[in-house]
Amino acid sequence: MRSTDELRSEILAAARTEFAQFGLAGARIDRIARNANASKERLYAHFTDKETLFRVLAAQDSAEFHNAVPIRSNAVAEFAGDVYDLAIRWPEHVRMMTWARLENVTLDTPPQNGTSGASKAITAITQAQQEGLVDPDWAPFDLVTLLFGIGLAWAHSPAQAAITDEPTTIARRRAAAVKAASRVIATGPL
Amino acid sequence: MRSTDELRSEILAAARTEFAQFGLAGARIDRIARNANASKERLYAHFTDKETLFRVLAAQDSAEFHNAVPIRSNAVAEFAGDVYDLAIRWPEHVRMMTWARLENVTLDTPPQNGTSGASKAITAITQAQQEGLVDPDWAPFDLVTLLFGIGLAWAHSPAQAAITDEPTTIARRRAAAVKAASRVIATGPL
Repeated sequence: MRSTDELRSEILAAARTEFAQFGLAGARIDRIARNANASKERLYAHFTDKETLFRVLAAQDSAEFHNAVPIRSNAVAEFAGDVYDLAIRWPEHVRMMTWARLENVTLDTPPQNGTSGASKAITAITQAQQEGLVDPDWAPFDLVTLLFGIGLAWAHSPAQAAITDEPTTIARRRAAAVKAASRVIATGPL
Repeated sequence: MRSTDELRSEILAAARTEFAQFGLAGARIDRIARNANASKERLYAHFTDKETLFRVLAAQDSAEFHNAVPIRSNAVAEFAGDVYDLAIRWPEHVRMMTWARLENVTLDTPPQNGTSGASKAITAITQAQQEGLVDPDWAPFDLVTLLFGIGLAWAHSPAQAAITDEPTTIARRRAAAVKAASRVIATGPL
């Protein structure tokens, strides 16, 4: 017999695969239940309905993704490269966040230890600006948004050529993301 | 009586609203037919099934979006601002392209006049590099991808704060996209 916790985590794993591939509307609860070796009734006992299960997972994936790429005030450009790497490593997380945005599912998670991931990023940027490591003219939120835009540029591109598993191409693009970010944050005249 | 062309264009307009909001899986053909004042039978006579209708529209929206923001070799940084503006003006086009990517619907459209939008962008970047207006070290495809990533950074952000209709904020973000792009393409030492 599986424990309640084991069952719950197997349902979540099956749900991630299903939702990442098909989205909220396209996912099938019976396929999730089958892949978790659970009945639909037991699944619904843990998660009220399909949308609740999607919300739980999307919020969890978004929090995991953002926690895995902290911005350090002394390595702001490197952050764009870390985001690029993580999008390659965790494509299902990126897909979950994108489906959630299109479905208007809000992912703003409750702050951890009193500070949300977003406000930690703003704090790191502000500190880097005070230390003269980042152009102080950038509004911190806009800069964080641009750094994610740079790191995720290939993941968000509709072009077939943006999809690759070729190590040389991946290394070149990661370096391009870091180079672009380091130019964007540069202090002093250009 | 509506002409066949009128009916077709009313179906497409109703379909864009429906698909942009709900995606391929979430869209309802009966709602599209009702909003176009057409029967489902007439709709299916024009478009074989829901997926065909989605493919036609997504390819059309993608081509319209890309044709509306040509890259000029003498104003490459401005391109990021044009992309930012267009994402504000045509949010449904951006949503259609994003749904299509998640649904693995390929949007690579046949070349117009022998040249696809993508290869026109590559040509413009290559020319700007030859003219000394853009850092020649960038791989042209990577640079085009980065410029889209910068222009669409707010549109792709999951943060609630990225959504705004406040003219001052929009103007500041557009300027931020152009400034970021101009730094990324800059020639010479930083």
